[in-house]
Amino acid sequence: MSSLKTIAIKRLKERGVEIKDIAEIVYKLQYKYFDKLTIEDCIDSVSNVIAKREVINAVLTAIAIDEAVEKNLLDEPINSIIKNDDSLYGIDEILPLSIVNIYGSIAFTNFGYLDKVKYGIIGKLDKLGKEKKQCHTFLDDIVCAIASSAASRLAHKK
Amino acid sequence: MSSLKTIAIKRLKERGVEIKDIAEIVYKLQYKYFDKLTIEDCIDSVSNVIAKREVINAVLTAIAIDEAVEKNLLDEPINSIIKNDDSLYGIDEILPLSIVNIYGSIAFTNFGYLDKVKYGIIGKLDKLGKEKKQCHTFLDDIVCAIASSAASRLAHKK
Amino acid sequence: MSSLKTIAIKRLKERGVEIKDIAEIVYKLQYKYFDKLTIEDCIDSVSNVIAKREVINAVLTAIAIDEAVEKNLLDEPINSIIKNDDSLYGIDEILPLSIVNIYGSIAFTNFGYLDKVKYGIIGKLDKLGKEKKQCHTFLDDIVCAIASSAASRLAHKK
Amino acid sequence: MSSLKTIAIKRLKERGVEIKDIAEIVYKLQYKYFDKLTIEDCIDSVSNVIAKREVINAVLTAIAIDEAVEKNLLDEPINSIIKNDDSLYGIDEILPLSIVNIYGSIAFTNFGYLDKVKYGIIGKLDKLGKEKKQCHTFLDDIVCAIASSAASRLAHKK
Repeated sequence: MSSLKTIAIKRLKERGVEIKDIAEIVYKLQYKYFDKLTIEDCIDSVSNVIAKREVINAVLTAIAIDEAVEKNLLDEPINSIIKNDDSLYGIDEILPLSIVNIYGSIAFTNFGYLDKVKYGIIGKLDKLGKEKKQCHTFLDDIVCAIASSAASRLAHKK
Repeated sequence: MSSLKTIAIKRLKERGVEIKDIAEIVYKLQYKYFDKLTIEDCIDSVSNVIAKREVINAVLTAIAIDEAVEKNLLDEPINSIIKNDDSLYGIDEILPLSIVNIYGSIAFTNFGYLDKVKYGIIGKLDKLGKEKKQCHTFLDDIVCAIASSAASRLAHKK
Repeated sequence: MSSLKTIAIKRLKERGVEIKDIAEIVYKLQYKYFDKLTIEDCIDSVSNVIAKREVINAVLTAIAIDEAVEKNLLDEPINSIIKNDDSLYGIDEILPLSIVNIYGSIAFTNFGYLDKVKYGIIGKLDKLGKEKKQCHTFLDDIVCAIASSAASRLAHKK
Repeated sequence: MSSLKTIAIKRLKERGVEIKDIAEIVYKLQYKYFDKLTIEDCIDSVSNVIAKREVINAVLTAIAIDEAVEKNLLDEPINSIIKNDDSLYGIDEILPLSIVNIYGSIAFTNFGYLDKVKYGIIGKLDKLGKEKKQCHTFLDDIVCAIASSAASRLAHKK
C-alpha cells in the first residue's frame, strides 16, 4: 500500500496540489480549537488520511476522470457536462463521500463548508477549471474531502 | 399527510422555529444566484420541504428526543451526552441526512456550511442549548437540513 | 432534459441493459407487497427514475468510466484497479448514492441487498466483468441503484 | 472510553443482544471468504467495532429512543409512528449510517442486505417489535450496522 500512497501524492502534485496546500486549509479550519496547533501537525494528519486505501482510490479515480475529460476522451454529452462543472452535475460531490464518511460527522460538515468557501488551493483549482484551462471538476472536491477529514482526525485525537 | 404537516409546523413553532425564520436562511443562501428572489419564494420552498413524509418524521423525532432530554427522561449517560451537544457526539448530524439526501448534493453541501456559520435561528437555538436553558441538540441540525434542502430545491427549479 | 433521458436509455442499451431487465428486478423485489403488481408498473417506475437529472448524470458517468477502462485510456494503476473490480475498491458503490439517496431509506437498503444477491442483469454484468470480456465495474452498481430506487418509489406510492 | 464501551455492552444485553449473537451474523456473512474463520475472530471484530465512540453513541441513543417509546414517554403521534416501525418511517435506517459509514462500502452494502434477510438476533428483535411486546425499531437496525461493520473490518484486514 505504501507505494500506492506515493503514487497518489505524485499524481496530486502533477495536478498542482501539494500536501502542504491541503495542510494549510486544515490549519485554517482547526487552529482556533487548539492551544498550539502547528502546520506540521496538519501535514501529518493529511499524510495519514492519504495513506488510507479508500482515499487513494478516490484520489486516483478523480484525477483519472478529470484528465480523461481534459483530453476529450469521454463520450458526449458527458465529457462537456463534466468539463462545465455545472452546480447541478452533482457526481463530483458524491465521490468524496468515500473519504469523508470514514472520518465521521465533523469531516462531513467541514466538507460542505469548504465546498462553499473554497479556501486556498480549492479556490485555485476551481478558478483554473472555470477558465477552461484545465479540468478539476472532481479534484477540487477530493481536496475538500481530504482537508475536512484531516481536520476531523485532529479534532478526534485532541 | 396534510395533518401531519400541520403538526410538524406546530411543533416547530412551540420550539421557537417559524417557517419564516427558516425562509430567511434560504434567502441568504440563494439570493445572489437569482435575479429576483423574494422571501415568499423561500417560504414556499420551505413549506414544500416540510410537506414530505421523511422530513415530518425527522422533525417530530428530533423534537421528541430534545424534549425527552430536557425533561431528563432518558437513561444516563446518554441524557447528559445529548444535553451537552459535544462536537464528537455526531448522531445529531446524521439524523438530518434523511432530509438532505433526498434533495441532492446542493442540499448536502449547504447543510455542512450552515452547520458551521449558524445563520439566524440556527445560531439562536445553538446558543439556548449551550446556555442549558433548553435542549436543541437535534433541532438545530434539522433546521440546517430544511433550509439547505429548500435552497437546493430552488436551485434545481431555476 | 427529455433528450438526455433518451441518450441515457440508448447508452444503457448499448451496454446490454434494457429498461425491461431492470423492471424485472423491481418486480422481484416488490411483488409480494402488492395485491397485483404488473411488469408494466415496474417499467413505468424505472422510466420515471431514469428521467431524473441526477440519475442521468450517474448513468452517463458510470458508463463513460467503464468504457474508458475497457479501452485502457486511464493511467495505471487505476485502470487495472477498476478493471479488476476488487471488493475493496469501493468507489463503484459510492457513485450510486447519488441515485439511491434521493429515493429514501427503502432504496438504500434494497441497494445493499441487490449488490449481494445480484438478480438477473446485475449478475450477468458482473459475470462479463469477472471474465474480463467487458468492464462493468460501475454499471452493475448503477443498475442496482436504479432498480432499488424504482422499488422504493413504488413502495412510497402504494 | 472503556467504561462507555462497558455500558454499551451492558445496555445491549439488557435489551436481549449479546456480542455472540452479533458475531454469529458476522460469521454467516464472512465464512465463505476465509479459509478458516472462527467465531472468536468474529467476536473480536464485533468487540472492536463497539469500542468506537460513534458506535457507542449510536447504541445508547437507539436504545434510549426504543425504551422511551416502550414507556410511551414521547409525544403523539411520533410515539406511535416509531412503535409501529412502519417501513416508510425511515429514521431508524438513517441513524446506523453513523456506524456503517466509517467502515466503508462493504459495511454499507452488507447493512442493506441484513436489513432484508434479518439473520438471527435481528429477526428475533424484529418479531418482538411486530408483536408489540417490546420496541426495537431502532435497535434492530443498529445490530445490522454493527454486524455489517464487523464483517467489513474482517474483509479489510484479510
